[in-house]
Amino acid sequence: MSSEQSLALQTALAYFRAWTSHEFEQAMRYVADDIVCQAPAGQLAGAEAFRGFMGPFADILTSSRLIAAFGDDETALLMYDAVTAPVKVAPGAECHTVRNGKITHMRIIFDRQPFTEARRAAAERAAAPDRRADD
Amino acid sequence: MSSEQSLALQTALAYFRAWTSHEFEQAMRYVADDIVCQAPAGQLAGAEAFRGFMGPFADILTSSRLIAAFGDDETALLMYDAVTAPVKVAPGAECHTVRNGKITHMRIIFDRQPFTEARRAAAERAAAPDRRADD
Repeated sequence: MSSEQSLALQTALAYFRAWTSHEFEQAMRYVADDIVCQAPAGQLAGAEAFRGFMGPFADILTSSRLIAAFGDDETALLMYDAVTAPVKVAPGAECHTVRNGKITHMRIIFDRQPFTEARRAAAERAAAPDRRADD
Repeated sequence: MSSEQSLALQTALAYFRAWTSHEFEQAMRYVADDIVCQAPAGQLAGAEAFRGFMGPFADILTSSRLIAAFGDDETALLMYDAVTAPVKVAPGAECHTVRNGKITHMRIIFDRQPFTEARRAAAERAAAPDRRADD
């Protein structure tokens, strides 16, 4: 695939390889200052909002695997498996619009439900860390 | 895109156009009898299990729009917006493996959370359909 990679796909894959290698600041070099990201919870505008969303996800990533990646001059489409600390099966799909080597728009799809369930279970454990008969 | 469509992409788009046009049985003509589908809730094996998963989703679809679609000889990758009766923003991404014009493997990613919330809200409404002071 590498010899035929579109410009958009080159950028998208450089971004993907960086954030999945825990080089998040390197990944942010491919993100436009005025990126608009449509995520499951809603729209994020600007690189700082994007960093606040994607940075914590990169932090909890333990491994990843690209399932498929395609692109043309301006668009790249990726699907990947991701394993995270709280959720073991956390695949994602991203559609990037790339202009001048920067990602200006990203549509990201993943299943929030297992993350919500993991947070709820963690909160319940925190509320009752060690059930004792006398408490 | 149409003049350069790969064989896998032709099949994937024919499937997509059929199910999003409420022609689900037509869509199933592109699905292999022994399809394996990795969905958010787990793996489905065989066309009947797939029908039981995807048919009800097609039934509640009110509109859709292809965001991006790419493919090569054997693989197609699609992302789409979907509007459903219970959930207005329900985008999905699918990676198809296609052999001999049939989809033999599908990886599908979507956010289950708004569907779970909609079901919960509907169950609460059903439990208290008309709150009266005397009930």
